[in-house]
Amino acid sequence: MSIRPVIHVISFLLFILCLCMGLAAVVSWLKGDPAMVYSRMGLCGLITLVFGSIAFLSTKKRRDEGDYTTGLREGFATVAFAWLTASCFSALPFTLIVGMSLPDSLFEAASGLTTTGASVVCNTLPLRGGTFLPNGIESLPAGILFWRSLLNWLGGVGIVFFVLLILPLLHINRGNLLYNAEVPGLKTDSDQLTPRLFNSVRWVLRVYICLTLCAFCLYKLCGMTGFDALCHAFSTISTGGFSTKNNSFAAFPSPVLQWGTTLLMLMSACNFTLLLRSLITRKLCFWADEEFRFFSLMFLSATIIIAILLFAGHPEGLDGFPRTVEHCLRTAAFQTATVASTTGFTTSDYDAWNLPFASALLLLIMFPCGCGGSTAGGMKCSRLIVIVKTMLTEIRYCLFPHTLTDVRLSGSRLSQNLLRKTSVFVLLYLAIIVIVAVSLLCVTDGSLMTSFSAALTCLSNVGPGFGAVGPSQNFGWMPATAKLILSLTMITGRLEIYTILALFLPSFWRR
Amino acid sequence: MSIRPVIHVISFLLFILCLCMGLAAVVSWLKGDPAMVYSRMGLCGLITLVFGSIAFLSTKKRRDEGDYTTGLREGFATVAFAWLTASCFSALPFTLIVGMSLPDSLFEAASGLTTTGASVVCNTLPLRGGTFLPNGIESLPAGILFWRSLLNWLGGVGIVFFVLLILPLLHINRGNLLYNAEVPGLKTDSDQLTPRLFNSVRWVLRVYICLTLCAFCLYKLCGMTGFDALCHAFSTISTGGFSTKNNSFAAFPSPVLQWGTTLLMLMSACNFTLLLRSLITRKLCFWADEEFRFFSLMFLSATIIIAILLFAGHPEGLDGFPRTVEHCLRTAAFQTATVASTTGFTTSDYDAWNLPFASALLLLIMFPCGCGGSTAGGMKCSRLIVIVKTMLTEIRYCLFPHTLTDVRLSGSRLSQNLLRKTSVFVLLYLAIIVIVAVSLLCVTDGSLMTSFSAALTCLSNVGPGFGAVGPSQNFGWMPATAKLILSLTMITGRLEIYTILALFLPSFWRR
Repeated sequence: MSIRPVIHVISFLLFILCLCMGLAAVVSWLKGDPAMVYSRMGLCGLITLVFGSIAFLSTKKRRDEGDYTTGLREGFATVAFAWLTASCFSALPFTLIVGMSLPDSLFEAASGLTTTGASVVCNTLPLRGGTFLPNGIESLPAGILFWRSLLNWLGGVGIVFFVLLILPLLHINRGNLLYNAEVPGLKTDSDQLTPRLFNSVRWVLRVYICLTLCAFCLYKLCGMTGFDALCHAFSTISTGGFSTKNNSFAAFPSPVLQWGTTLLMLMSACNFTLLLRSLITRKLCFWADEEFRFFSLMFLSATIIIAILLFAGHPEGLDGFPRTVEHCLRTAAFQTATVASTTGFTTSDYDAWNLPFASALLLLIMFPCGCGGSTAGGMKCSRLIVIVKTMLTEIRYCLFPHTLTDVRLSGSRLSQNLLRKTSVFVLLYLAIIVIVAVSLLCVTDGSLMTSFSAALTCLSNVGPGFGAVGPSQNFGWMPATAKLILSLTMITGRLEIYTILALFLPSFWRR
Repeated sequence: MSIRPVIHVISFLLFILCLCMGLAAVVSWLKGDPAMVYSRMGLCGLITLVFGSIAFLSTKKRRDEGDYTTGLREGFATVAFAWLTASCFSALPFTLIVGMSLPDSLFEAASGLTTTGASVVCNTLPLRGGTFLPNGIESLPAGILFWRSLLNWLGGVGIVFFVLLILPLLHINRGNLLYNAEVPGLKTDSDQLTPRLFNSVRWVLRVYICLTLCAFCLYKLCGMTGFDALCHAFSTISTGGFSTKNNSFAAFPSPVLQWGTTLLMLMSACNFTLLLRSLITRKLCFWADEEFRFFSLMFLSATIIIAILLFAGHPEGLDGFPRTVEHCLRTAAFQTATVASTTGFTTSDYDAWNLPFASALLLLIMFPCGCGGSTAGGMKCSRLIVIVKTMLTEIRYCLFPHTLTDVRLSGSRLSQNLLRKTSVFVLLYLAIIVIVAVSLLCVTDGSLMTSFSAALTCLSNVGPGFGAVGPSQNFGWMPATAKLILSLTMITGRLEIYTILALFLPSFWRR
């Protein structure tokens, strides 16, 4: 493997990060943070700039050199190390300004960039100098709150664009495989974004910014401050989930706001190709897409069931609100949308509902989550559909071994190769959850449910889990090893697992 | 599908059941049970005989008829309905003699015949007439205790032989597919038992009876009564797990006995083909078998880790015994063997150890369990090995798409077809666990862990689970619906899932 082109591409990423840190410094200054905050934020930007420049200059092409000729391995390495490096540099503000330990900072940064939204910030998190945060998230300076949300937003852009923008620099001919590894639903047979690359890039960016603006306006109109509205808009559209409040969206009880957020989260979990196509052709073609149909039905049925359970199970009302049909429905819809879109905001602690069936539903949704080609994490609904169809085909094949049976998605026939890849992907996904959960059991003293749900929620980039990592809890109590394991798990999940797993193969590193 | 040959084969099975009920009646009479017990056991035999005769006579071939020409579907139907019918008729003694309700009786019979060993018998189980059993299992009459263990033994014979003995009657040409569906490890490329069918049948029967006699002698020598020794020998070799004591093997604290049982359980979980080959060729060829190596290593490593955890976590000793290395090692080995072989005896309640990591290990072992071609249930170790190798191959394939990579088991190359079948099998296995667990959550008020482990333990035919179905608990508290669901789950697991799943296809029932 040749490392030079990899470092070269990553140097661009560091420049982007440096710009973002500058932006965060400006916001911090405008919001009246102490001078220490914005000056140190600027320092972080400077450090990133220095490293970026060194990386850029040392790997710049000489005049007589041709284009870099690179293979698949370089592509994988670029994607994997880009996320790993970005997580490390993004952790700088947390350690330099807040005084968090290195594993804590790394966890928070990885959680932000992978749009997971799991946090270690809480009152009891030990900081450098033996101090604590008096009031959890809300005692963080504005610059840091903005930085967390910006990380979410960057991660969201990253996951849709990184491959589109950066990989062409690498001239990977067989790049399609990598597209496939990173954003499965983005590449469908007839609607490849690839040929019209830069045109698509512009369109996707427009949609993304448009959605963010919509979210900002909604939040502002519903009574949030401009700052809160911006931060929450960033973390909603990226399906990130970092909030500026300890109670997440429970701090904003406006029904309109919560319904609006639910809708925005659901939109962010839809295939971007579908949104684009609808915009370009000005025809609503959502329902023709099998994955979208499945996602909608999954969301609707889970919402209705959970709402009924909430209504029946809490006659005295929930979270201090009187029992109304609207409140139960809203709570159910918000919680289902937050899990299905892997955002991770909460308006109510589903782990405290004491409804095992509702918990099981939410836990199950954490496996497929959103649609392919969106910023949502998880296995993606399309894979689940393919798996179910493959299983049915296989049962039929047992009885009628001479009948040829196709597996089709939205009408188009899937190749045997793709079916095998999908089955193995799902098995690998489950295997990683088991391995991470067992590792967590080794290094923490959490229960089975805590470890299992922590592994699942991090791999699927959801955020909150169950038990000691439930919606009203956080990851601050975990030992450093567990935080590092989970940071890697989040990045693995974000990069559709193969990209990171490939790094563990000895043959990856051979020349 | 033509139903006549199916019923014809099942009529033979009813004759066998009738004979066994006669045997149980004799044992009951010898052990001095009240006249009601052995007379009603005889009555059950008579009912079975009558139904068997009607089935036999009504489907007998007429003189001018040729052999039945049957296809795969008839084969599947025979296997599936044989287990379902056998479970129904075997339930008769429980309902007629003990007075258990129909779902309870069916659950107990299915649990016996599938060698699961999960029981509903407890002090609080409501019987007909509003009575209860004063002392749980130990207040059952000897005839019923013997019947439970005999069901285990029959189920064990059934799973190894049924296909070998009965299917040739059906003249299924493509029968190999069915062998494959029922006892995966029995059919390996070079060691097919099929060509030397009746010879093999005799050999396997000999080994099975030999092992049962060994177990009987061991138990008798270690101080059990003759009756207890016989019952436990039956349920050990079949990896069933029904005991005549409320405390299972904790009632027999002899270390020699417990170590011996551990060894017998492990032997019963080994591939019968391997045992046979070693006997016939008089060479120990176990270690050459990759599955056996995996199984041994899994058992040894789990035992050692759990023993260390027990030693470190219970300085005051376990279950009232003082802390010694031997006791910890024995408890760990027994519990690991009982889960890995899917027997389900217990000497200690692992759910009360308060060691989440040990629990997680035992829970994980409940997935693969024993080797293929044994009486053990579960996914089988061979499938797990194949899955892991397939996953590694797929990761490698991502990086080097032009390299051909084989997946091999014990040196021989596996076909793409088999790899696909195995992946889909494992996915189906997990899907069934999820579906059953969610159904249980709907109909019971158990926790997530209880429902999930009940689904897993029944599908894998282990017996005890975690939580409210843990080793010191039972399934008696569940509502009737849950018991029926779990009965079907046990049979599904026992018949390697496809056999039962095929019944749910509409195309199965078409003419």
